[in-house]
Amino acid sequence: MRLGHRTWLFENKPKIIATGTICGPFEGKGKIPNDFDTIHGDLWLGQDSYEKAQRVMFEEACTKAVEKAGLTKEDIEFLLAGDLINQITPSSFASRTLSAPYIGLFGACSTSMEGLALASLIVDSGFGNIVLAGTASHNAATEKQFRYPTEYGGQKPPTAQWTVTAAGAAIVSSQGEGPVVTSATLGKVIDMGMSDPFNMGGAMAPAAVDTIEAHLKDRNIDLSYYDYVFTGDLGTIGREIALDLLKKHSISVNEEKFQDCGLLIYKEDQPILAGGSGCGCSAGVTYGHLLNRMRKGEIKRMLVVATGALLSPLSFQQKETIPCIAHAVSIEAGGVGL
Amino acid sequence: MRLGHRTWLFENKPKIIATGTICGPFEGKGKIPNDFDTIHGDLWLGQDSYEKAQRVMFEEACTKAVEKAGLTKEDIEFLLAGDLINQITPSSFASRTLSAPYIGLFGACSTSMEGLALASLIVDSGFGNIVLAGTASHNAATEKQFRYPTEYGGQKPPTAQWTVTAAGAAIVSSQGEGPVVTSATLGKVIDMGMSDPFNMGGAMAPAAVDTIEAHLKDRNIDLSYYDYVFTGDLGTIGREIALDLLKKHSISVNEEKFQDCGLLIYKEDQPILAGGSGCGCSAGVTYGHLLNRMRKGEIKRMLVVATGALLSPLSFQQKETIPCIAHAVSIEAGGVGL
Repeated sequence: MRLGHRTWLFENKPKIIATGTICGPFEGKGKIPNDFDTIHGDLWLGQDSYEKAQRVMFEEACTKAVEKAGLTKEDIEFLLAGDLINQITPSSFASRTLSAPYIGLFGACSTSMEGLALASLIVDSGFGNIVLAGTASHNAATEKQFRYPTEYGGQKPPTAQWTVTAAGAAIVSSQGEGPVVTSATLGKVIDMGMSDPFNMGGAMAPAAVDTIEAHLKDRNIDLSYYDYVFTGDLGTIGREIALDLLKKHSISVNEEKFQDCGLLIYKEDQPILAGGSGCGCSAGVTYGHLLNRMRKGEIKRMLVVATGALLSPLSFQQKETIPCIAHAVSIEAGGVGL
Repeated sequence: MRLGHRTWLFENKPKIIATGTICGPFEGKGKIPNDFDTIHGDLWLGQDSYEKAQRVMFEEACTKAVEKAGLTKEDIEFLLAGDLINQITPSSFASRTLSAPYIGLFGACSTSMEGLALASLIVDSGFGNIVLAGTASHNAATEKQFRYPTEYGGQKPPTAQWTVTAAGAAIVSSQGEGPVVTSATLGKVIDMGMSDPFNMGGAMAPAAVDTIEAHLKDRNIDLSYYDYVFTGDLGTIGREIALDLLKKHSISVNEEKFQDCGLLIYKEDQPILAGGSGCGCSAGVTYGHLLNRMRKGEIKRMLVVATGALLSPLSFQQKETIPCIAHAVSIEAGGVGL
């Protein structure tokens, strides 16, 4: 059922019954390597292009999730996926391999929770029983498309973020066991007039706060309801801005419980500037690290707020500002809902 | 409820209560100018880029639909949109203007029915009451991105299609009057190994047939159930291949009742080669011309099968074949369902 203005409350307990997470070599040297099912030793994954490597990584995440659920790929009823690459080709080509009915999405780095929200809606409303949602990003493919080929060695300001090479996929089902997706709040496009593509976190922070505020209002709760809020990829700068904005909007927040997927994945001595980003960041961290912590009992209720910067190189060249969005999904152990 | 493998049957009568359709000057000289709400006299729409013109066109289609429904833009609960331009920026920037919670989609030219299927699911399952779905394409923006700038005057083979400059948007609601969306069949990615981006219709035809076959099986009907089947943009060549494949699969079809949106929009003497294409083609034709014919009583039941070629210029350069998809939605006057 719809709750308030833009929140979906899932009353039939759609569950994340299995996930698959894959990462690249740099992420494998990060803070949470054990939370990935597979760590690749090189960026190419045996392919002849980075885009194809991203496709393979996403296929592996999906296959791993299917295996862990004890299913075969023929059991997947719908696949919801998207990514940052033009025309989301890695997702579409992976979907050719998986051969499930396919719903292509685009939400930039918010695609992870956009997909999980829709997959949960499909399962909750009985329009599907076994739905796969996921996304991926590849550092070199993204740098090449949005900025410069990495071979140029271009300098970046400290506000820039590092695109994560990772993939994450989750199977949502009404049958089986797992953390329950209890609600989702869809994002509005928020654009505060920022136009610097090297400061995505700063641009995306207002969108995250807008969605969190709507979520709390629609569910009639405050942030203390959750053990943790995990934003998508705000990085250090975006996180600070989001905390400031939450205070300005009189939303009480425990700073230690307000964390960012882009800051959880790498070690502090890795040269990632303001933090990780990319579709695979919130997908990989949520479906690996965060759900593992939930399984261990460290987290009972969490709100994952995946943020996306909906710009393109062309819109930047045409002097447009950066429209941003954030989709929030609440995941609760055992499905203790409201 | 889900019916068979990949069909959603909408039992609560989600209705298309209003639509908005906008087109460019070349389409205004076509076969169905009176079915567009607004015909623009030039391709720029007062903007300084074709991508911005596409955004404005899509905004106008949404605004027109909202006005015709007697609503304001604040009434729109969710907007589902996408397009062919990298990172679907025209849709995302339009969604900034409309300020409704936004679900970004990518299905190439199948986006129209992907959006309508999801909007109908949201309304049917009670997760929303007033949902806007739409898409747009702009000939010059698409040519520039996928092929060559039009100023080059590059030659094309007769199998090539002409990207339609048009936008179409529909408001789906449980309240109000209008044609009923009775079911939707989601597409699988089908790739028969074709790699010629100048013969999209030929590449997409097998996807259209696959979805039609699944739809008939899932609903346990034959094509005579529908007054018409309208494919997305197969054009003359794709339509011929689709008819051959239907026969090969022993699906009985009345050729006169099997039409294509890409062949309905232009006059026969317009130089469009194999027919129209682009996201705005099936959206504009369906939400304008076809629903008008339904209102006049000429069509009672139709199946719209929007086809999409999920390639990118990069995937073509990397010698990939063209993965294709088709999403089918059945629309029935007065909601005479099964």
